[in-house]
Amino acid sequence: MRNFVAMEISSLLLRRALEEVALLPGIGKRTALRLVLHLLRQPEARTQALAEALLELREGIRRCNVCHNISDTELCEICSSPKREAALVCVVEDIRDVMAIEATGHYRGLYHVLGGKISPVDGIGPQDLTIKSLIDRVKEGEVKEVILALSATMEGDTTNFYIYRQLEGLEVTLSTIARGIPVGDDLEYADQVTLGRSILQRIPFEGSLNR
Amino acid sequence: MRNFVAMEISSLLLRRALEEVALLPGIGKRTALRLVLHLLRQPEARTQALAEALLELREGIRRCNVCHNISDTELCEICSSPKREAALVCVVEDIRDVMAIEATGHYRGLYHVLGGKISPVDGIGPQDLTIKSLIDRVKEGEVKEVILALSATMEGDTTNFYIYRQLEGLEVTLSTIARGIPVGDDLEYADQVTLGRSILQRIPFEGSLNR
Repeated sequence: MRNFVAMEISSLLLRRALEEVALLPGIGKRTALRLVLHLLRQPEARTQALAEALLELREGIRRCNVCHNISDTELCEICSSPKREAALVCVVEDIRDVMAIEATGHYRGLYHVLGGKISPVDGIGPQDLTIKSLIDRVKEGEVKEVILALSATMEGDTTNFYIYRQLEGLEVTLSTIARGIPVGDDLEYADQVTLGRSILQRIPFEGSLNR
Repeated sequence: MRNFVAMEISSLLLRRALEEVALLPGIGKRTALRLVLHLLRQPEARTQALAEALLELREGIRRCNVCHNISDTELCEICSSPKREAALVCVVEDIRDVMAIEATGHYRGLYHVLGGKISPVDGIGPQDLTIKSLIDRVKEGEVKEVILALSATMEGDTTNFYIYRQLEGLEVTLSTIARGIPVGDDLEYADQVTLGRSILQRIPFEGSLNR
């Protein structure tokens, strides 16, 4: 591949657009050029729609006052839905985790988005996350079960333990999502830690679970 | 990889932004989500700078009246530069070709951007390209050599031949860029057509070329 980094671009307008697009993560100079030239070939209305959607998102988007999920309103759609089980709160790191769990269609409770994990190395302490807001939610008394769904890393475990200590003494069940071999995966390709855990934390056999 | 296409997104603002970003070529739904969430984590000014750069580009950009290269002004920087050889015109398909040739630093002439190649299959005829404008440029008399730098495909050859016929009888030299084994490449990995051509179109050995 030839090196296009030093590509000569005489148009200031084009250069500025390329620089802005290339600031996005995973978008190099060549991809930026491809995207921008694509926009130039399209009707002007397409570029306007893209720019407006981004601006309106950035101006209009907020965090839900209760669960801190991304939302168009002060109380997000999930928190304000009467169909969701308000006694169940799933603690996740990121709004992408909410989307992933929602996509399964298997969860009807509420969420609590922490905004990260406790990580002393990165200078992220409990006060940088929405942990206090979670404890306050539980103290209000409506929440009966808190499901910890953070990633299984040292930071995730630290955060889980911190939350566990904060919730001690409150009348709430604490659970964590099941770790094990993904459905459909061969045992031989599973990593040792996961396979070991899936044996130690085996569950009673039920016909319905084998589907 | 899990299928995130059916990802649940309750925010209308977010959904609209994702749809617009995912319309860009090579950007799937997951990449769109990554890019948009990145913008949300950045200060609002970054999104504004991106949107403005795209809008200003789309509104302000034009084609050079002479060479049809992308330009901020009616006459592009290359065509208006007194340092360039006005007697030399390199015919390319696309503005990206101009950028690639400029990046070599080996060309001091002018350009003519055709805007594509003659391709009956795709319904692109000579009248859809800037060929007439090229012929008019040559007829004005200042151009002494036209370098054809289209891609070596059937469409490229067709276009070259069409331009050759149009320029017949005019006082202008017609040349084409050298095809051959890329500098630094091993012969054994070269394709047969290129290797064959590079032998048929061999050039006199000169010490200086071997560097």
